[in-house]
Amino acid sequence: MSKSNGILSGMRVVEAAAFVAAPLGGMTLAQMGADVIRIDTLGGGLDYRRWPVTEDNTSLFWCGLNKSKRSVALDLSSPEGRELAMALVTAPGEDAGLFLTNFPPRGWLDHDKLRARRADLIQLTLMGDRHGGSAVDYTVNARVGVTMFTGDPGSEEPVNHVLPAWDLVTGQMVAVGLLAAERHRRLTGEGQHVKLALQDVGLAVMNHLGFIEEARRGQPRQRHGNELFGAFGRDFVTADGQRIMLVGLTHKQWRTICESLDMQAEVDALAARTGLDLNQEGNRFRVRKELGEIAAARISRRSFADLQQVFDRLGVCWDRYQTVEQLVRDDPECSPANPMFSAITQPGVGETIAAGIPLDFSARGRIPAQPAPRLGEHTEQVLQELLGMPAAEYGRLHDKGVVR
Amino acid sequence: MSKSNGILSGMRVVEAAAFVAAPLGGMTLAQMGADVIRIDTLGGGLDYRRWPVTEDNTSLFWCGLNKSKRSVALDLSSPEGRELAMALVTAPGEDAGLFLTNFPPRGWLDHDKLRARRADLIQLTLMGDRHGGSAVDYTVNARVGVTMFTGDPGSEEPVNHVLPAWDLVTGQMVAVGLLAAERHRRLTGEGQHVKLALQDVGLAVMNHLGFIEEARRGQPRQRHGNELFGAFGRDFVTADGQRIMLVGLTHKQWRTICESLDMQAEVDALAARTGLDLNQEGNRFRVRKELGEIAAARISRRSFADLQQVFDRLGVCWDRYQTVEQLVRDDPECSPANPMFSAITQPGVGETIAAGIPLDFSARGRIPAQPAPRLGEHTEQVLQELLGMPAAEYGRLHDKGVVR
Repeated sequence: MSKSNGILSGMRVVEAAAFVAAPLGGMTLAQMGADVIRIDTLGGGLDYRRWPVTEDNTSLFWCGLNKSKRSVALDLSSPEGRELAMALVTAPGEDAGLFLTNFPPRGWLDHDKLRARRADLIQLTLMGDRHGGSAVDYTVNARVGVTMFTGDPGSEEPVNHVLPAWDLVTGQMVAVGLLAAERHRRLTGEGQHVKLALQDVGLAVMNHLGFIEEARRGQPRQRHGNELFGAFGRDFVTADGQRIMLVGLTHKQWRTICESLDMQAEVDALAARTGLDLNQEGNRFRVRKELGEIAAARISRRSFADLQQVFDRLGVCWDRYQTVEQLVRDDPECSPANPMFSAITQPGVGETIAAGIPLDFSARGRIPAQPAPRLGEHTEQVLQELLGMPAAEYGRLHDKGVVR
Repeated sequence: MSKSNGILSGMRVVEAAAFVAAPLGGMTLAQMGADVIRIDTLGGGLDYRRWPVTEDNTSLFWCGLNKSKRSVALDLSSPEGRELAMALVTAPGEDAGLFLTNFPPRGWLDHDKLRARRADLIQLTLMGDRHGGSAVDYTVNARVGVTMFTGDPGSEEPVNHVLPAWDLVTGQMVAVGLLAAERHRRLTGEGQHVKLALQDVGLAVMNHLGFIEEARRGQPRQRHGNELFGAFGRDFVTADGQRIMLVGLTHKQWRTICESLDMQAEVDALAARTGLDLNQEGNRFRVRKELGEIAAARISRRSFADLQQVFDRLGVCWDRYQTVEQLVRDDPECSPANPMFSAITQPGVGETIAAGIPLDFSARGRIPAQPAPRLGEHTEQVLQELLGMPAAEYGRLHDKGVVR
């Protein structure tokens, strides 16, 4: 299955962006078959050396977030370079004229200037906050309050998450915004400027999940460590020292836990003693300490292999805690045995595995993940293809240092 | 701006789903103007009482994730109820025939059966793992390894995140998948079954961010507490006890930190002493302890108000740590002063604020957030509208207990 057969084949997007959210949005479209052309300044943009890096300073981060894209490198400090960038953004093509950026929309990225060159341009500008101020995943996380209820119940200090969750959500929302605007243009012919602020994504989610209304009602979320809120779920350690996460959120999940651990009689006794119907998820949370002890006593006496066998047989909702090393070494789901992964050769990195898009479209099948480009790998090709630039003109620009 | 003017107005989606990811995907489309009809069983589905709840057991979670949708309640245990559900999923309409579920695709949700009734049906089925097994945010998080590098560097134990990050990312990806498949159908006429597994989203992200390749190279990510990896960034406490997060990832961010804290000379001395170019982000991480002490000495002597003034003047990337109570009480961004928020009356909850979609489409403007429906609020309306059901027939079904 080649990229030209992807579900978005034919769509062309130009991206001028850095870090996680905007590049991830572009990569999401690229991994569904869109032609995503990333424009960088010569030598690479703000995220070209973002850690983690290899011994020779190739960024695993940059390679990871720019898979399946084409790369154009231009001297954006020169008027000629900026002119080329504007021409690429607004180049003709029925299914083109989509532009994604998280840089301030001024200079060559100014929407009005670009729209003057292509009236139906769709531009999506990602910002830190809605006023154009600076904000990143870590600052949004501090502001919206999540750090204050993450971690150990005894802790007084905020715990930052390490997974850049706000960036990741926003990255998908970037793809949503571009697809929705493209649909609108297909139906009406109308382009537009779509704006999105990382901070607003954080605030919206805090509202959607009920955290804001809880606090408005004077019952803000407390720290519950590794326990799931509002039902039964926590971590346990097996007889042979393996930590597992066990979840009894739905009635069926709860029933299979009781059955697999042979603990129903003791649970019934607890229900009788407390007068609580433990088939109600909230009541399981109310007596989580007691339920946890009942389960822990059993789990701590059984081996991981034994528990794995019975949990999987009964369809319990559970998993093991792994380090990333264990994940990479031992887990077939994190290998090309999972059709989402492919073995690739990534320039600057070598032989590795790479994930394609998790969405599996029956009409087209999966597109294998493709490496990130070398910086500027497609400059000549793209200038020729989109702008019809002759080789001699490219040579002139190259000699002048506008392209490389 | 009414819903019928949204960027997706005209699109109709039927949803049969529970918990976070799938309902969030549906709500994302609804908040852009799509008509999203949620089908529940009488009395409510698996997530209808999910915590947090009000005193009278109305779920703030359910209300938060089902805003702007219509609700149909059917007795799905009866053949007649299931027949109505199938008829709604496959009801005619050029811009309809989109179905979103995270239930096992069998019985009335079987794709082949549904497609037999509407050949161009688009169905998106969200699963726990790709084999159809059970997995939720907490189990995916344990498996992919994030818990092992979250929290305090001294800790030996995994730290679960509380924000259901995998669900949130997957929810947006659900919307991406439906929009991409709808585009494909518009271009080719072809429907399809799109499958997505929560666990695969987790694995893909671990790959995209470089965590997997780090571990493959024998340098797995360590715990760094509240420090940002690979550059300068951590939490500090001001003279008056306010905790803040400060980030110096880009050169500009770093320069404004040095300037605002008047610490450039000491930083230069550190650079000279260590022989490291601290304009390189990775070198700032290498001497993060020393840089943190230089900054902490200054921040701990200055008031929050003083720092806020200079940080904002120079455009520093920073924010305060807040509890959700403080966010709700003190932060105008979390109020209708931010056009993403509206004051609404939510049945079962009362007067509250609600967030619309963070995406701001210039072609259509913002749609104010609308409340979640009461369970079954639109059953009669939807059956009449989509299936042309006469009032007498609805009455018969109601008396029989198939609808309510």
